[in-house]
Amino acid sequence: MNHSCRNLRVLIAYDGTEFSGWQKQKHVRTIQGDIEACLKRMTRENIPLHGAGRTDAGVHAEGMVAHFKTISHISTEDFLFGLNSMLPGSIRILDVIPVDYKFHARFSARKKQYHYTIFTGRIQPPSKRLYSLHIRDNLNLKKMSECMSHLQGTHDFSSFENSGSRDKSDLSGRGAVRTLSKASLTQKDNNSLVFDFIGDGFLRHMVRNLVGTLLESGRERLSVDLFKEILQAKDRTLAGPKAPPHGLSLIKIFY
Amino acid sequence: MNHSCRNLRVLIAYDGTEFSGWQKQKHVRTIQGDIEACLKRMTRENIPLHGAGRTDAGVHAEGMVAHFKTISHISTEDFLFGLNSMLPGSIRILDVIPVDYKFHARFSARKKQYHYTIFTGRIQPPSKRLYSLHIRDNLNLKKMSECMSHLQGTHDFSSFENSGSRDKSDLSGRGAVRTLSKASLTQKDNNSLVFDFIGDGFLRHMVRNLVGTLLESGRERLSVDLFKEILQAKDRTLAGPKAPPHGLSLIKIFY
Repeated sequence: MNHSCRNLRVLIAYDGTEFSGWQKQKHVRTIQGDIEACLKRMTRENIPLHGAGRTDAGVHAEGMVAHFKTISHISTEDFLFGLNSMLPGSIRILDVIPVDYKFHARFSARKKQYHYTIFTGRIQPPSKRLYSLHIRDNLNLKKMSECMSHLQGTHDFSSFENSGSRDKSDLSGRGAVRTLSKASLTQKDNNSLVFDFIGDGFLRHMVRNLVGTLLESGRERLSVDLFKEILQAKDRTLAGPKAPPHGLSLIKIFY
Repeated sequence: MNHSCRNLRVLIAYDGTEFSGWQKQKHVRTIQGDIEACLKRMTRENIPLHGAGRTDAGVHAEGMVAHFKTISHISTEDFLFGLNSMLPGSIRILDVIPVDYKFHARFSARKKQYHYTIFTGRIQPPSKRLYSLHIRDNLNLKKMSECMSHLQGTHDFSSFENSGSRDKSDLSGRGAVRTLSKASLTQKDNNSLVFDFIGDGFLRHMVRNLVGTLLESGRERLSVDLFKEILQAKDRTLAGPKAPPHGLSLIKIFY
């Protein structure tokens, strides 16, 4: 181990609207790509930035965590200030702290929290359009909450996974089994609903598929019993449509 | 007067970020231009939309008012629904109501209200970047409030007008004299300040010039006495820099 090499943990917020998601890709703008480019400008090192997970194009984050290793002597304070000076306002570094060399943003994560926000008023204010899904149908909140109560605990969430999309680097052997410690619905103000999920992991598009299906139950197109059956069936073809990305935000990673 | 011609009053909210302001211009996107294009698609008439005033590129509105005349038989409800279907989410029609034939969005307006929002926290959340100006300097709120108290009432605001920019169609004969019935500063939450102005009219860039100068006093670069002198001098060269457009929002037009 190189003792002059530090491991730094970064807390990041972003507006995903104009990005092709978290993960670096050629020819498109991504959060990871933008931050790595700034790290290179600051340190002249080729620094890989390891995120706690990926987010899709258009998905936001209030509390993404990542880590990177550097042999530079730049202070954490200067990283915070320097990165924010170079990055666009749509990406903000909220915190940089030195962590144990063994800390890994992804493998050390215990839980993640996501919010999915719905605007239910008749006309959506322009300032909310990028951060909440506008639903004009009447929604039965009691029914959606009841469906969500059945999501809590440990389940095989295959029915809400995008087919053929399992992360191939998932070496945990747990397949599509995940544990949700929270799945609840809260009314934020008169016109906003927030689906709140905390889990030890989420399959690809799982939150968006869950929300799309929950909304079908809220519209009275799906009974609570049928919702439970869909969960138990482990069959993606039964669930509702995937909710669009812009209502989704990664709120917090728990370590 | 053509009795089959209706006069309709429209309440409009918009995110000005991607627009070159309210007023229609060739080759660029404007709020007026976008709405007039939709009115034409709906009615096949060439309908001029008269706004209560103009807003600059990047300035937002929660309550712009405009009126238009039409010989069509489209209901106000269908105008509301149809326009919102065709317009981008950054422009929302909040209300369409029939008004007296003599109602004029601009000439009938008695007062206007503007808010200018400042984010004072250390790191500005991405979702606020388009709607508030980020100021990291310590601001003396008491001093700014005291300066604002001197703005209330009737004054010649030449010092805060953009030079050479008086609206040539101002036939009121009042020159740069305007009456502010409200000029106050409120703390919205821990990290936000709102400058709140209500007046019988505002000169071009007046709010942004006022806010830029008030911020100089908040930064202790300008005493309250000097602020009063600037107001009394009627000389634009004395005031502080113009605050950027994205913190500004037209809140309400009073009739």
